[in-house]
Amino acid sequence: MKIRYGIVGTGALGGFYGGLLAKSGQEVHFLLRSDFEFVNQNGLKVDSILGNFTLPEINAYRQAEDMPVCDVVLVCLKTTNNHRLAELIRPLLHANSMIVLIQNGLGLEEDLSIHFPGTPIAGGLAFVCAQKVEPGYIQHLDFGKLVLAPLNSGDSTLLNQVVSDFKQSGIVSEFMADLKFARWQKLVWNVPFNGLTVALNTTTDRLVIQENSRKLVHELMLEVIGAANSCGVPLKDNLAEQMIDMTLKMKPYAPSMKLDYDFGRPLEIDAIYSRPIKEALLCGYAMPKVSVLENQLRFLQAENR
Amino acid sequence: MKIRYGIVGTGALGGFYGGLLAKSGQEVHFLLRSDFEFVNQNGLKVDSILGNFTLPEINAYRQAEDMPVCDVVLVCLKTTNNHRLAELIRPLLHANSMIVLIQNGLGLEEDLSIHFPGTPIAGGLAFVCAQKVEPGYIQHLDFGKLVLAPLNSGDSTLLNQVVSDFKQSGIVSEFMADLKFARWQKLVWNVPFNGLTVALNTTTDRLVIQENSRKLVHELMLEVIGAANSCGVPLKDNLAEQMIDMTLKMKPYAPSMKLDYDFGRPLEIDAIYSRPIKEALLCGYAMPKVSVLENQLRFLQAENR
Repeated sequence: MKIRYGIVGTGALGGFYGGLLAKSGQEVHFLLRSDFEFVNQNGLKVDSILGNFTLPEINAYRQAEDMPVCDVVLVCLKTTNNHRLAELIRPLLHANSMIVLIQNGLGLEEDLSIHFPGTPIAGGLAFVCAQKVEPGYIQHLDFGKLVLAPLNSGDSTLLNQVVSDFKQSGIVSEFMADLKFARWQKLVWNVPFNGLTVALNTTTDRLVIQENSRKLVHELMLEVIGAANSCGVPLKDNLAEQMIDMTLKMKPYAPSMKLDYDFGRPLEIDAIYSRPIKEALLCGYAMPKVSVLENQLRFLQAENR
Repeated sequence: MKIRYGIVGTGALGGFYGGLLAKSGQEVHFLLRSDFEFVNQNGLKVDSILGNFTLPEINAYRQAEDMPVCDVVLVCLKTTNNHRLAELIRPLLHANSMIVLIQNGLGLEEDLSIHFPGTPIAGGLAFVCAQKVEPGYIQHLDFGKLVLAPLNSGDSTLLNQVVSDFKQSGIVSEFMADLKFARWQKLVWNVPFNGLTVALNTTTDRLVIQENSRKLVHELMLEVIGAANSCGVPLKDNLAEQMIDMTLKMKPYAPSMKLDYDFGRPLEIDAIYSRPIKEALLCGYAMPKVSVLENQLRFLQAENR
């Protein structure tokens, strides 16, 4: 089965994952906004630890209405744009389309499903260090794994085909049955590192090298794990040490929230902080330490404008 | 009764309070370190909302051994120097001397009393916005009240005389029987504002004007009040709102910890954060939010060197 892919949001993630799919021979259509002119003229360039490549000509579009309907819509936008998501996606869907949200945070698929009842929706968890350094120019620095998990159980043939296409494009990809588990698991890393690199104006390596910040990272991770457990997601406490060890081995890295902050863009505070805090509270679990970071980030975002 | 005063540490607080005492006719001896040469030559200059004044000649000393013994030793050093405090003070004491620690934090008088059993010790709580802008040049921006409270009950004649001398020097001063109450009360302000102005690189006004940071300030204050309550100190929750309202009326201000950070000096993390957290824990009370700030400050201090 040949899948027609639509990429909504061609930044670091959309450019990297969509670029890999196109390079491996898939049919991929890219929606762009500010970078449309440049990419339409010059194509995409990806410097990757998996091997550099360029795509001189891609199917680039300025608006969703100009695109063909797609079998799989990969949403690679920042969650700060999710209030516009339904209208962006709607023109791309046919009766059997699937939507995959390659985004950070919690509750994103549930929110979108209200607009598209009956449409299969999945979450994509990107374990990747990548950044857009210029229009149409992506740097892939480390890792790359993409986990895909369905919002609702049911026929997973199409989603497994996507996993298979990603594998064939050269990256590690994995089907996971439990989306909630996958999303909380990723938050264990995102909550400390996205927020603290902004609040303390630093990079991931400094946070895990220094004793006090590593302690703080660990405590924040345990609070996320505790919240997940309270909501019925069985993450183990030792996941915290595992993720800290992994981060110690990573190249020094500025997560997407740090880049957003440095470039004056909105931060993904709702999806990564406020929503998990709210969900945990509904399960009877308070997150006092994560709340401190949430409020600090809201302050910094407002002062940054 | 005429008191001979010794000022240990002639920075913002020592220069301001000691300067006022000297101006009002008291006998005051100032211990200085880096500013000795300048102040010995040029005296002290104080720009104050109570009226500017200069003291062209003061009793300035480079080391404690050169000073006469004093009736009252006012310690105005940063607590980051408290490991050297006993040796600095010892030469200044006679049989009936009293030591007053005009410092921020908790447990300072208890720590010092181990070195000077039998010597009366008191705490001084300075509610003042003042800063040293140059050697021998102090700016007094706002407030000024000095609360004095004895470590141990007993004869309070001398401490009351000090209160009276301060009143005569032109500032509001007050005797308080309960040192522990006074110290926890001051922490309610110091914990949020000292730490957050450093962590978020801002000033007191921004923190209380912005909604999310005001919420965070309020939550941190409630945690300090909760800790105090657990340790038998009956602070009321509405103290938090009162202090926020007071701060809204204050001029924009960088607390001492912010200035310490900006000038690369050590931060008073032990006295203002770690000690209260430890004391609260001994009383069975956890301070998760304050602990986040504590760890952030330790990280920032280490990165700042």
